[in-house]
Amino acid sequence: MNIKNISPKQIEIIDLTKLGELEGKEIKLQGVIHRLRILPNVTFCILRLERSLIQVVAEQQHDLSKFIEGDFVEITGIVRSSKLNDRAILNKNYEISLVTINLIHRPKELPPFEINKKELNIKPDLEFDMRPISLRHPKKRAIFKISETIANSFASFLELNGFTRIFSPKIVFAGAEGGANIFKIQYFDKMAYLAQSPQFYKQYGVGIFGRVYDIGPVFRAEKHNTTRHINEYISLDFEMGFISSFEDVMALETAYLKYLIEQLKEKNSFEIDLLEITLPTFNDFIPSIKLKDAHEIVFKEIKKDYRNEPDLSPDEEKFLTQWSKKEYNSEFLFITHFPTSKRPFYTMDDPENPGETLSFDLLFRGLEITTGGQRIHDYDMQYNKIVSFGLNPSDFESFLQLHKYGVPPHGGLAIGLERLTARICGIENIKEASMYPRDINRITP
Amino acid sequence: MNIKNISPKQIEIIDLTKLGELEGKEIKLQGVIHRLRILPNVTFCILRLERSLIQVVAEQQHDLSKFIEGDFVEITGIVRSSKLNDRAILNKNYEISLVTINLIHRPKELPPFEINKKELNIKPDLEFDMRPISLRHPKKRAIFKISETIANSFASFLELNGFTRIFSPKIVFAGAEGGANIFKIQYFDKMAYLAQSPQFYKQYGVGIFGRVYDIGPVFRAEKHNTTRHINEYISLDFEMGFISSFEDVMALETAYLKYLIEQLKEKNSFEIDLLEITLPTFNDFIPSIKLKDAHEIVFKEIKKDYRNEPDLSPDEEKFLTQWSKKEYNSEFLFITHFPTSKRPFYTMDDPENPGETLSFDLLFRGLEITTGGQRIHDYDMQYNKIVSFGLNPSDFESFLQLHKYGVPPHGGLAIGLERLTARICGIENIKEASMYPRDINRITP
Repeated sequence: MNIKNISPKQIEIIDLTKLGELEGKEIKLQGVIHRLRILPNVTFCILRLERSLIQVVAEQQHDLSKFIEGDFVEITGIVRSSKLNDRAILNKNYEISLVTINLIHRPKELPPFEINKKELNIKPDLEFDMRPISLRHPKKRAIFKISETIANSFASFLELNGFTRIFSPKIVFAGAEGGANIFKIQYFDKMAYLAQSPQFYKQYGVGIFGRVYDIGPVFRAEKHNTTRHINEYISLDFEMGFISSFEDVMALETAYLKYLIEQLKEKNSFEIDLLEITLPTFNDFIPSIKLKDAHEIVFKEIKKDYRNEPDLSPDEEKFLTQWSKKEYNSEFLFITHFPTSKRPFYTMDDPENPGETLSFDLLFRGLEITTGGQRIHDYDMQYNKIVSFGLNPSDFESFLQLHKYGVPPHGGLAIGLERLTARICGIENIKEASMYPRDINRITP
Repeated sequence: MNIKNISPKQIEIIDLTKLGELEGKEIKLQGVIHRLRILPNVTFCILRLERSLIQVVAEQQHDLSKFIEGDFVEITGIVRSSKLNDRAILNKNYEISLVTINLIHRPKELPPFEINKKELNIKPDLEFDMRPISLRHPKKRAIFKISETIANSFASFLELNGFTRIFSPKIVFAGAEGGANIFKIQYFDKMAYLAQSPQFYKQYGVGIFGRVYDIGPVFRAEKHNTTRHINEYISLDFEMGFISSFEDVMALETAYLKYLIEQLKEKNSFEIDLLEITLPTFNDFIPSIKLKDAHEIVFKEIKKDYRNEPDLSPDEEKFLTQWSKKEYNSEFLFITHFPTSKRPFYTMDDPENPGETLSFDLLFRGLEITTGGQRIHDYDMQYNKIVSFGLNPSDFESFLQLHKYGVPPHGGLAIGLERLTARICGIENIKEASMYPRDINRITP
């Protein structure tokens, strides 16, 4: 009998931003040959690593003619200074002088497009059909390093603020948002649904842990196929108890955004440079206006009359963040007090303004990226609002447990990860900020 | 028009482990009255905070008779030293001498069980039916602070090891594991499925980022209703490229488990004490044996003959971790080389042992908590194995893109969060380690 001992072993990581410390030393790298240029006296081999490219230079004693682009290789080489200007290279002040190169694996075929061009520039359908391959393009994958920082910094910021992470179930018996936009599942001999939001579970979480956050997928069976919608997306959710106003939620989001901008500067300077991202800035605050005032501004400034509309139109969202940038140097703008009819049944009405709710959206670069507000915590108020919405309280028995047995005043928000990622990266179509977007026509790959 | 400025504002957190630094000072707390004991000269009011209890003592000038257990209150009081012995209290060396108390909200009703007893001890059906309330019990919610650390330390450990976080889609067109255990969704005019694992997307991730991890829900339509199964669970997944052996994956998991134990000591000493958890220990390694040798040990030691079985039985899993604890001081044990027929079609066969795979399970305290192994990276090998499994390669067109256009040798694993949480907490039924467990009979709350 053969018993092995498995000892703990971590990955050896070379910090490429500190390549200078290794100048003159030999290092080992594994990667893909991204570009290969064989000249009479020298060969330039650009390797694609986990996050960036690196230039490997082979002097003429090395014959690299048996290698092709796409090969997975292991190289050793000496770090030496250089001056490179490809934004996809990290670190641009160094290159590797080749010592040895070994083939690890050669692909069966070359993909039908060139992954090593500066811009991918292929048709969207091909790009999405071949996403496992097209995401290898340095600029495509960089988007998801930004997205990763947005999600991870949401978690770390909320952890610093005493929030507990929850994992809400995705198979549910009823939808939080109500309405027809819900996917049905055959669950053994019952019908079940895919969660449209973790809303109920976040509110339960307030009663359990006081403050909770949840990062996970949500599902909306919306039929529109636009650059602003996908049918499965990652929702960054939090909910906090003992608030004194729904503005507490907005103030915490403002603090998160400040923190996020710092985290992006710290962790993603490579991607910021590669994608030529302009990070959002704001002065010490984000301006906040009521929906009806927002309609007035739009009417006054660009003569479009939405003053009787219960919601913002896409062109208002576009105009209003330009306006707030000009007037307040803020690319973010809160819109508050949406009408009762346009907000879900768990939203708290404004006692001072009948028909309006203590709710908000956050607009950023022309797009709503957050919905939030104060929720109802009183049992009778919640029961009556369910009835006034034409819903049946017995369908909300589990949810009403919360109010019956008590929960403190609370509120929260949901940020769409793909929307925020897209707008930070300056991408128009949010599908590009989803690795494998699902829309009315697409569930592959 | 009214424009407000929303300034960033974080939550003021009192670190209860450092309450000594505030001795003699007045602090403000918000919480629930967990227990109220009114004596002639003094009232003891135990408040339930986000994570722990705290004792508030009201001298006789305070009349607390108008308060009841379950009330949400805000108090101010002076920190003073004490000596308490309720494990649910943090910090046991201090209490609060009441200065002011205000009612924030009173629930409509009291729940049908007492949340403030040392043990909840109610019937499981009632506990799960009323999970939004029963999870408020200090010992119940403590389980999920352990679970939170397991998930968050998985993320931070892998980040330190150069992994990129991905979010794999949950609506998919085919199942990674194959077979009948898959939930169907009506996706507009198509049929779709709920992901059984992020397997394909993790493997795509290796081609994109080299090393990836994913934390999210997965769905299994398994009909058995046991203490070891739930139909929706959180899977902690990683996949790493450029491995030289499937043991690289096992060595990284071993390093994670060491890291996790340190993180639990650092972040969860409160819950470890409250739940009387014995943290797992191992010497400098985790032992690893082949499946057939595991069967031999079981046969030799307890005379049960599973030597012709292609998998481990539950009683073998129980016995084997006892055995490895006795023999190697390790409550963890790797079992390797499962037969080809019992592992999915993407598993690499062992070239040296036909019919066996380069795969492993990790057992811990009698339960399989991890499945992993090396995957096939070669196109022809993967194509042929799909065919030999009786599957149709054209159903795996997206997946085979990966192999056709190339991916380096790679492997990975999946850890069941609820299983690992349950075993660390010493819980027999993994449903108790899921906030809102889904089983064949339950999709509520």
